[in-house]
Amino acid sequence: MRVKDGNWFTEVCDEAGSAFSLRVTKKLHTERSRYQTIEVYATSHFGNLLVLDGFVMLSARDNFVYHEMMSHPAMYTHPHPKRVLVIGGGDCGCLGEVLKHSEVIAAELVELDERVTRVSERFFPELCAANDDPRASLHFTDGVEWVARADPDAYDVIIVDSTDPIGQTARLFQAPFYVSCRRALGDAGVLIVQSESPLIHTELIHSIRAEMGNAGFQRMSTLYFPQCTYPSGWWSATLAGGQRAHTEFREPQAREKSFATRYYNADIHRAALAQPNFMQAL
Amino acid sequence: MRVKDGNWFTEVCDEAGSAFSLRVTKKLHTERSRYQTIEVYATSHFGNLLVLDGFVMLSARDNFVYHEMMSHPAMYTHPHPKRVLVIGGGDCGCLGEVLKHSEVIAAELVELDERVTRVSERFFPELCAANDDPRASLHFTDGVEWVARADPDAYDVIIVDSTDPIGQTARLFQAPFYVSCRRALGDAGVLIVQSESPLIHTELIHSIRAEMGNAGFQRMSTLYFPQCTYPSGWWSATLAGGQRAHTEFREPQAREKSFATRYYNADIHRAALAQPNFMQAL
Repeated sequence: MRVKDGNWFTEVCDEAGSAFSLRVTKKLHTERSRYQTIEVYATSHFGNLLVLDGFVMLSARDNFVYHEMMSHPAMYTHPHPKRVLVIGGGDCGCLGEVLKHSEVIAAELVELDERVTRVSERFFPELCAANDDPRASLHFTDGVEWVARADPDAYDVIIVDSTDPIGQTARLFQAPFYVSCRRALGDAGVLIVQSESPLIHTELIHSIRAEMGNAGFQRMSTLYFPQCTYPSGWWSATLAGGQRAHTEFREPQAREKSFATRYYNADIHRAALAQPNFMQAL
Repeated sequence: MRVKDGNWFTEVCDEAGSAFSLRVTKKLHTERSRYQTIEVYATSHFGNLLVLDGFVMLSARDNFVYHEMMSHPAMYTHPHPKRVLVIGGGDCGCLGEVLKHSEVIAAELVELDERVTRVSERFFPELCAANDDPRASLHFTDGVEWVARADPDAYDVIIVDSTDPIGQTARLFQAPFYVSCRRALGDAGVLIVQSESPLIHTELIHSIRAEMGNAGFQRMSTLYFPQCTYPSGWWSATLAGGQRAHTEFREPQAREKSFATRYYNADIHRAALAQPNFMQAL
């Protein structure tokens, strides 16, 4: 069900019986790509808003929290992240954060729908500002197949910046994909996946961690952060890796980082790893 | 502006151009008290919902985060919290959390509107289960005047569980009230106030901290936590006290606490104190 009038965009979250709305001033763009309906709205207080198949992907105002938390904790968990793969993330927000790390020699983005990137370049140029970095490469193809065909130990960090686990995207939340990631990462590699709302999708987070374990990852850690424009306003990402505990991130380097962030810092990194009691109980 | 149909309750946040809705199955109660309109809805996924003058106060599903974070960080910051005052908080959720601490010898609730408490006893009995505790006393009168008339050093902890800073409630966000709190607490005392959304009300948090400083508090710390049913889904509380830094809370006791919580634990306490970069910049 979609509640709409001329002044509001509303996303209904059926599984929570909740809805979130932003006041819109103008519809800037709409198209049906090969894969989905892509819409962009101008909002009164959140800047431009990107919507895919009716689901909010990001707003200009608050995406910094998500993109920083999907990128820097994984980057500072790996001892020397040189080769990074972003699956999904066609808005290029994660790619831009990854490229802030000077250790990176290659950052590949594999997004199914090129139109998401082209629309983002037009309406969210700030997210795409680093796309011309010579270390960056963009590939518009299927991420599951890309990782399945990757060489063993090809990447240091894999970031899965996906939409909700519906349709084709559901494959990004299942063991066969995580097996490919495990192989492509090698023992030192770090995987991070967006893992939905701790309040609404508690069981899904449990399932993701179980699938990661089935795929051969030894250590999983779920991180928590606010994300105002997503259902419940509270979101999570789940890290997976080899035997090194994720609490042992490169904290001194995170404290001394040479680039700017608006949400992330070393204290926030450690804070995001704190597990609420109801999540520990699972 | 209020968007309503028979199936949804919607709260619009004008200052953010956003709205949050819950699917309702039944309107359980409505009354106009001396001070405000009190409504209770049954929702499809969030249990009962308490609404005052159109603003969501709490849902049965997610209020535990707010009530635990408004209570336990302040309680574990004070070295021996025996005498506790809750201003507002007529739903009695904070009172119940405070009474979990065995050190407490007296917990006073001062709520302006007795009807909020009576309605909560009926529709949120789980929040009021400790109201018969012999250490608890409920007073239905003006909190600002109560604190102004309190003896010096009368309380160890004061919790300000207020509605938004509109109308009469605005007094709870201003220096004269904080001066009274400072006097009623003495040097070792700890004040905690709900301080709205970090994303939407950034300037208000800054103003609250400035007013606290003007009132003679030496140390202020803002804590962050999710609150799904409040605007932006991200909320804050601001601690104020004497010279002892709030990072020096009674962490060993928090780790070994003898009562149950669903969100709070010692790691979460420390995590809530981490300041996002954009808040540090203020």
